[in-house]
Amino acid sequence: MNSSELVKQIETKGSFLCVGLDTDLSLIPKSFLSEADPVFAFNKAVIDATEKYAVAYKPNIAFYEAMGPSGWESLQKTMDYIPKEIFTIADAKRGDIGNTAYKYAQTFFEPASSGFDFDSITVAPYMGHDSVEPFLRFEDKWVILLALTSNPGSHDFQMSKSEDYIPLYERVMRLAMSWGNVEQLMFVIGATRSDFLQKVREIAPDNFFLVPGVGAQGGSLEDVAKYAMNSRVGLLVNSSRGIIYAGDDTSVSAAREAKKLKEEMSMYLDEYWIK
Amino acid sequence: MNSSELVKQIETKGSFLCVGLDTDLSLIPKSFLSEADPVFAFNKAVIDATEKYAVAYKPNIAFYEAMGPSGWESLQKTMDYIPKEIFTIADAKRGDIGNTAYKYAQTFFEPASSGFDFDSITVAPYMGHDSVEPFLRFEDKWVILLALTSNPGSHDFQMSKSEDYIPLYERVMRLAMSWGNVEQLMFVIGATRSDFLQKVREIAPDNFFLVPGVGAQGGSLEDVAKYAMNSRVGLLVNSSRGIIYAGDDTSVSAAREAKKLKEEMSMYLDEYWIK
Repeated sequence: MNSSELVKQIETKGSFLCVGLDTDLSLIPKSFLSEADPVFAFNKAVIDATEKYAVAYKPNIAFYEAMGPSGWESLQKTMDYIPKEIFTIADAKRGDIGNTAYKYAQTFFEPASSGFDFDSITVAPYMGHDSVEPFLRFEDKWVILLALTSNPGSHDFQMSKSEDYIPLYERVMRLAMSWGNVEQLMFVIGATRSDFLQKVREIAPDNFFLVPGVGAQGGSLEDVAKYAMNSRVGLLVNSSRGIIYAGDDTSVSAAREAKKLKEEMSMYLDEYWIK
Repeated sequence: MNSSELVKQIETKGSFLCVGLDTDLSLIPKSFLSEADPVFAFNKAVIDATEKYAVAYKPNIAFYEAMGPSGWESLQKTMDYIPKEIFTIADAKRGDIGNTAYKYAQTFFEPASSGFDFDSITVAPYMGHDSVEPFLRFEDKWVILLALTSNPGSHDFQMSKSEDYIPLYERVMRLAMSWGNVEQLMFVIGATRSDFLQKVREIAPDNFFLVPGVGAQGGSLEDVAKYAMNSRVGLLVNSSRGIIYAGDDTSVSAAREAKKLKEEMSMYLDEYWIK
């Protein structure tokens, strides 16, 4: 998917909501456990309930991987079920040397390889250019590179300043922008502080940001819109547990929470989106 | 597996060789392609040929993942086939926030979850403490943390110096050593320059290092032994393509190349191992 299609979808739906599919057998309502494939049955209910409000779905690959081969089958069925116009993110945080990175790219981008046809994948930058570049070879596919994350550990290395006083996350963003253009490179930006939101938007004025950490992790959705929206919106804001585990009747509770976020987002699009 | 068992195996075999199982259908001898499970058939041939010389096997997870669910089944069969006394490494380079990291740990460490029971996993440090800690909760399991890798991209961030003039890889090592002890934490150290080998051994005198980059990538095995061996050997040196793709008759060529490396290693153990 290219950015025009993504922006068009955001405009049509009045939403920049990404729903995280962190599907965990120990957390889904018990009613699904009697299904032949409880993971897929649950995801199907979530998708049915939220597809009007969401512009992206983000399966967290760890949750499927942890179930062995059957987890990958549930993921495949889920991907086949997601409407084609909705953007998909493999939240996999992969990162390895060239030939291995290419294998990971094939896993998520090349249907003839593994069966998957994701629009994007989250990638870790630690190993540098040749660990990211193989993902950039695929047309209309996106790398969503870890820059500034929302977890406590983000202070350990991402914030550490180099001898020229540039923090690592900024160095990652600036260098990565020389590897890929705004049609293939997004950044993961944890939405916890407004000063950082302004700063990262200054560093990467035109790139899309995938923003976790709103809601449960304490970030303010309004701050994200106010400080990091650009002329093409440039935002995908993720909610996982707050939507998918909001109640025992998934089709009602997931729809309710997604709609609530969508309505807030519509408001901010009216207020802060200067086309 | 604990370090005493690993060191004992190194001593018994006179080897610190790790064989990388980067199994790729387009590179294995054609004779395997008629087998029901060509990937497992090839791995079985490699294991039969090298188990006398190797103390560790390291499947590169990307290569299995790229094949979809059947790849995970081939990997499971491979893991079941590896002799129990040999150390196993899931080369997965995972790294994500706490609850997700725990799922990845379950994937590779908890047989009841995915079926796998690896001794160790490679982990990326970018997201900091809470992305590494969940792996350290498992007894007799190891985190092998990316520190200084052997690829060109290692210069992009790992070598960048912080305001106190400490390069990132050193910062990663020093901080990680406060998270886990020498019985659960190894580092990935690319074996390309002798001055770096001395430096990293100084930083982490007692930790095991997993060393790729010998052979095809140009590192000298003697330098690794000379500059980075410690009183418990402290080294696992990996070779993948140089062993598994050395010829069309895998059982002969893999054995020949593994034996060659093992003999060189035996010599260096005699020369540089001061117990």
